[in-house]
Amino acid sequence: MLTIDADIESFLDAHRDERLESLFELLRIPSISTLPEHGPDIRRAAGWIVAEATRIGLENAQTFETAGQPVVYADWLHAEGAPTILVYCHYDVQPVDPIELWETAPFEPFVRDGRVVGRGSADDKGQLHMHLKAAEALLATRGRLPINLKLLFEGEEEHSSVGLEDWIGENRERLAADAIVISDTGFFEGNVPAMTTSLRGMLYTQIDVTGAPLDLHSGGFGGAVQNPANALARIITELKSASGRVLVPGFYDDVVEPTKQERFEMSCLPFDESDFHRQTGVPELVAGEPGFTLLECMGVRPTLDVNGIWGGFTGEGSKAIIPAHAHAKVSCRLVPDQDGERLFEKFRDFVLQVAPRGVTVEVSNLGTAKPLRMDPELPVSKSAAKALQATCGQAPVMIRSGGSIPVAAMFSEILGLPLTMLGFANPDCNAHAPNETMVLLNYETGLRTITRLWDDLATASAAGARMGGTTE
Amino acid sequence: MLTIDADIESFLDAHRDERLESLFELLRIPSISTLPEHGPDIRRAAGWIVAEATRIGLENAQTFETAGQPVVYADWLHAEGAPTILVYCHYDVQPVDPIELWETAPFEPFVRDGRVVGRGSADDKGQLHMHLKAAEALLATRGRLPINLKLLFEGEEEHSSVGLEDWIGENRERLAADAIVISDTGFFEGNVPAMTTSLRGMLYTQIDVTGAPLDLHSGGFGGAVQNPANALARIITELKSASGRVLVPGFYDDVVEPTKQERFEMSCLPFDESDFHRQTGVPELVAGEPGFTLLECMGVRPTLDVNGIWGGFTGEGSKAIIPAHAHAKVSCRLVPDQDGERLFEKFRDFVLQVAPRGVTVEVSNLGTAKPLRMDPELPVSKSAAKALQATCGQAPVMIRSGGSIPVAAMFSEILGLPLTMLGFANPDCNAHAPNETMVLLNYETGLRTITRLWDDLATASAAGARMGGTTE
Repeated sequence: MLTIDADIESFLDAHRDERLESLFELLRIPSISTLPEHGPDIRRAAGWIVAEATRIGLENAQTFETAGQPVVYADWLHAEGAPTILVYCHYDVQPVDPIELWETAPFEPFVRDGRVVGRGSADDKGQLHMHLKAAEALLATRGRLPINLKLLFEGEEEHSSVGLEDWIGENRERLAADAIVISDTGFFEGNVPAMTTSLRGMLYTQIDVTGAPLDLHSGGFGGAVQNPANALARIITELKSASGRVLVPGFYDDVVEPTKQERFEMSCLPFDESDFHRQTGVPELVAGEPGFTLLECMGVRPTLDVNGIWGGFTGEGSKAIIPAHAHAKVSCRLVPDQDGERLFEKFRDFVLQVAPRGVTVEVSNLGTAKPLRMDPELPVSKSAAKALQATCGQAPVMIRSGGSIPVAAMFSEILGLPLTMLGFANPDCNAHAPNETMVLLNYETGLRTITRLWDDLATASAAGARMGGTTE
Repeated sequence: MLTIDADIESFLDAHRDERLESLFELLRIPSISTLPEHGPDIRRAAGWIVAEATRIGLENAQTFETAGQPVVYADWLHAEGAPTILVYCHYDVQPVDPIELWETAPFEPFVRDGRVVGRGSADDKGQLHMHLKAAEALLATRGRLPINLKLLFEGEEEHSSVGLEDWIGENRERLAADAIVISDTGFFEGNVPAMTTSLRGMLYTQIDVTGAPLDLHSGGFGGAVQNPANALARIITELKSASGRVLVPGFYDDVVEPTKQERFEMSCLPFDESDFHRQTGVPELVAGEPGFTLLECMGVRPTLDVNGIWGGFTGEGSKAIIPAHAHAKVSCRLVPDQDGERLFEKFRDFVLQVAPRGVTVEVSNLGTAKPLRMDPELPVSKSAAKALQATCGQAPVMIRSGGSIPVAAMFSEILGLPLTMLGFANPDCNAHAPNETMVLLNYETGLRTITRLWDDLATASAAGARMGGTTE
């Protein structure tokens, strides 16, 4: 059942170079969604995908406007009686700063040591491209797909998906399906095939501290005014204990504590701490919270991190000023059942409460994402696990990811669809960092796993399996 | 004796516009000493001063190379039997960032509401220019100066005077004088004529906190590594108590506590707190240390302030990373008898001691300046006070400045000269900040005070007064 069609394999083999060049074309477009100046690039990337989807034989390929960046949609709906699968990926990418740490230009992809190097290679254009190329291989060799396929590619996953929620709500019918497959995750440490069974949510804030309207001479005024940068440092410090526990009152109220069984399972994962340590390059690993292992802190515990901080004189040499203002971006990774919107209010109130006097403090919510758990017993998840095992020769491990995919919870809530997360990024892919890579073998594994998954879902459905239930 | 010469007054009157245009020429040169790209501008400014000093009849006008920026020197030494006075000002200026807060271009000076607007108008090119123009007026009307004058203009006062100390040591003979006059201070709040009787010293440091070599994805790694920006915030917070007392062990050991008499005198100064508050524009004034008044905290107590802080993602929108590194510039204003070099070691040790684990922390000393007290009973100080009183119609108040002039202590120590600080900047001049201004009346007051001072010193000397003693 899960052997790959020989025709498909030879098609994939024959078009390897062409496929890579096509991926490079997409990676060359700097579709950074958080920076307004890249708006035209976002649209260029969307246009490229529409053209490519049409070329390979998908139908209704088009962009839809949203309150934010456009959504790309395409489908193929001629597999009568077979299930309909909605696929989600995103075509926007993270900013590239600090640009000086890239060894090569982020939007000039190439292959080195068996990896595609470039922004978006792993997160998430590379995975989006697998879905296009898997469909192409099936359509080119068989003239049809085994299932009905709806592709939905977002343009602002890295910008809190600001326009997508409303658009999904308004397009329930267009998105009707039996299950959804999200490809925006990756393998486990050591590049072990894996499926993600939970995602952390997100609360992303900005704290702005203002003193005087202009920088003040630290000689003339030092000792008479509160320093906004010192005040900001104090606020940030008050947010967490020295051992890492978040001190915002009520922060942990809705956290679902991992069960003994879950903790046991996590402890059995093939996690090589010294390998992981080497990968990070930090002087020492530090578990974020007392009483939990590193994997637990990354997967099932919430975090609070400064993502950026700035204020005052940051040039070479010295300038003796009291900065007029200081700022920080502070975000929390959330776990079930924390709610970002509710937590934001607690966060804001606490920041204002601990803020030193003599400065004005503002706290903004730059975006939230709900945490999510996926049931590995869903038929679509079981088929995905089988497809992965058939391609890789080993069963995937089930992991709880520390990352966030805001749209995942939206799909669950708005469309009520069974959902599985099937991602192929190598864990050392440098997503969100300089020198992002996708291991080529993972890319090729992804292609083949996807074609196998569609075949298996069609077969299971023909045998009478229902997609929505948790048992067959 | 202290009436101004009618010829000088009419010369000054007749050349008012020309004088202003000459000042503008100097202010137009962006001689920012802390930014290497402005090296050529520093040299342009030095060249401009040499040419102008020569034009007005001073002699030996030239630049001298130092380990840092060049020193400008000029003299006039034909007043046989009269005292020799060394004048110090500086021709470099502070950087202009945040440039977006300047209402007009910082290096395109003009007059608005009775003020010269532009970087350096007050600190310190405007004051340097007074000395040139006072000498010009005397030389043009009398063909001579009443005293022997040596002008020494530094090019890196805003960059910790890195090259000056050695140069002074190597030029003791050239700088031999009976007293030194430093013009780099200002009037008291409300623009009340004042003389500065002490300067704070400075310790300027940078703290660099490093975690991973690259930014890390906060989803994939959050919970497993120390965050350098959070760690930096904690370090900064540990440096001071919530009430503002510096917690570096031994920080206050060498502080000379103000006497009851000094505290009484400070409390008698015409300090309008609500005016001062308005001037700062801060939401609330905050005395830096418990148990001391605002004026005391600014004048006789040391401070610790963050001058700049940066790290991670600082663009628009959100980027979910753990920054690879975070940095802060932290400086202390010091009071007698604190020693910056000794304090740096205590500061560095304490920073390393309170640094959270999991990050690498480096602490650098970017420069120190010794605090200094000036004796108002020195003959040169008494003459300066008389000259100010004659020009302004009121006796100057004696103030303890919160600012630092690194070279002042150097002169005291290396040359062993009696020293007075005679400065004319309006206290709301925005030195080191955007929209720097010099009140034109202060500039004109300065010119006249300087010519009166030279005349008075010549007369006092002829009457047998010694410059070096504290009593006559």
